[in-house]
Amino acid sequence: MVYKNTHAFDQALELKPLGDGRYAGHTHPAWANMVGPFGGVTAATVINAIAHDALCVGEPLSLTVNFVAAVVDGPFELHLKVARTNRSTQHWTFEIVQVDPETQGEGSMIVITGTAMTGLRRATWSASDMPMPLVPSPADLPVAAQFSAVKWLERYDMRSVVGGIPMDWGHAAPPTANTGTNEITTAGASLSQLWVRDAALRPMDFASLTAFADIFFPRIFLRRRQWVPAGTVSMTVYFHASLAQLEAMGNGYVLAQAQGQEYRHGFFDQASQLWNEQGHMLATTHQLVYFKA
Amino acid sequence: MVYKNTHAFDQALELKPLGDGRYAGHTHPAWANMVGPFGGVTAATVINAIAHDALCVGEPLSLTVNFVAAVVDGPFELHLKVARTNRSTQHWTFEIVQVDPETQGEGSMIVITGTAMTGLRRATWSASDMPMPLVPSPADLPVAAQFSAVKWLERYDMRSVVGGIPMDWGHAAPPTANTGTNEITTAGASLSQLWVRDAALRPMDFASLTAFADIFFPRIFLRRRQWVPAGTVSMTVYFHASLAQLEAMGNGYVLAQAQGQEYRHGFFDQASQLWNEQGHMLATTHQLVYFKA
Repeated sequence: MVYKNTHAFDQALELKPLGDGRYAGHTHPAWANMVGPFGGVTAATVINAIAHDALCVGEPLSLTVNFVAAVVDGPFELHLKVARTNRSTQHWTFEIVQVDPETQGEGSMIVITGTAMTGLRRATWSASDMPMPLVPSPADLPVAAQFSAVKWLERYDMRSVVGGIPMDWGHAAPPTANTGTNEITTAGASLSQLWVRDAALRPMDFASLTAFADIFFPRIFLRRRQWVPAGTVSMTVYFHASLAQLEAMGNGYVLAQAQGQEYRHGFFDQASQLWNEQGHMLATTHQLVYFKA
Repeated sequence: MVYKNTHAFDQALELKPLGDGRYAGHTHPAWANMVGPFGGVTAATVINAIAHDALCVGEPLSLTVNFVAAVVDGPFELHLKVARTNRSTQHWTFEIVQVDPETQGEGSMIVITGTAMTGLRRATWSASDMPMPLVPSPADLPVAAQFSAVKWLERYDMRSVVGGIPMDWGHAAPPTANTGTNEITTAGASLSQLWVRDAALRPMDFASLTAFADIFFPRIFLRRRQWVPAGTVSMTVYFHASLAQLEAMGNGYVLAQAQGQEYRHGFFDQASQLWNEQGHMLATTHQLVYFKA
């Protein structure tokens, strides 16, 4: 691949316009996950394409991305469609398609579906009902240990506050049968808080914020203290920051917080918040995650 | 309208199959909101159509509904599409279209977009990291006061625990300018908890659970203690309960909890949880809401 950009994140976002809302892209080796690319980069690619599309009104306000089939390493096409343009908001639908390996390259299959909303940000009354927790500053925390098998983790400077990746794998309680009665814990049992920024510094934008929204390892790793197959199936991001606020962050860190809610029938969900160092909420995000346990 | 069903909720869900994933429906006067129908019924209509579609694999797992334009009282068409069928999960996209009033009935416009996932529920390890709060039982609480102007509220038996609809309208602090510094409050400032069930009893299913997910008045009413224009623009529901669990609820109440997170630039979001009386999490849900203040 020949890239126009020097930063690996900008390289991963590169798309070639094919006209009519269609774009050609390619997964990037620096963003490899255990299988296929980091989902956060796939989501970032979509919101970046929407935000820079000639038809786009305003800035990203919400995004839902469904991981409907495994994205495989290689080329893909993004198809954007404007469903509705209102006076100050706009609604988008999109798909990512890849060559279907079962048809020897003759058919295409949908691997991502989703919807997004963009809009003009107006000056209004504002308030935070979910204030940033009091945590040590990133400079006072060590760089977090990571799975060396996961390439994309090298792209980030992460400083764990609480709920870092478990180091005592295998000390989990044995799996319990689904008896209809859940194991009930207190809120906080699967809480992670970490400071994060790009390891190779890069100005914040909606694309990098979207990738940060998917930065968390699966909550079930924390709860079971063992590795189990798990992967995001649907993610929604609500963008609270304006582009001006993101641009004003300089090389600042983002405090990312995730909390699992319910684990049942092979799926769990998490609720997350992202703040800047000044305590301003940048985005809130939720996801539903498949697991096998 | 001639209805097949006797319960107003089942009547509102009635659709006439037109083939090829297309369905004809009509808004129901018993579910009128201040303008158009209650959004929860619109979302319920979609998930009910998907769950009962001949192509559907499994039960609802997630749903995102975008309110891209005001749904007006009258007929509509729902268009469902299967984006992908996996071994045990399935991904759907959908639109609701109505006649465009600006074209004198000749054109149609998209009023709803969205995506959904269904799938088979497997017996797995399960846990709750967001246990139901300890609250009085519904029998010990009075029926909540409501806006008499909003028809659909009559369809529900609601018992407020905390954060009921404000009764001291107009005692709000004057609007503050957006200075870039938010008003910071503690988590809980916009917390509502209420017990809810259908006023005319009806067995629980994914449709009624979806409507319950949209049962909350806008958080900004609670925060400003004044009425301001507000409406949901996007809602996501993660379904944790199985159909068997819903059916086992009998005439039980649902504890519905909503908490605002961030209010800025004319939008706020809320995070919500729904439990049954036995404390089992039924669904978690989030929404982004437009406001003018």
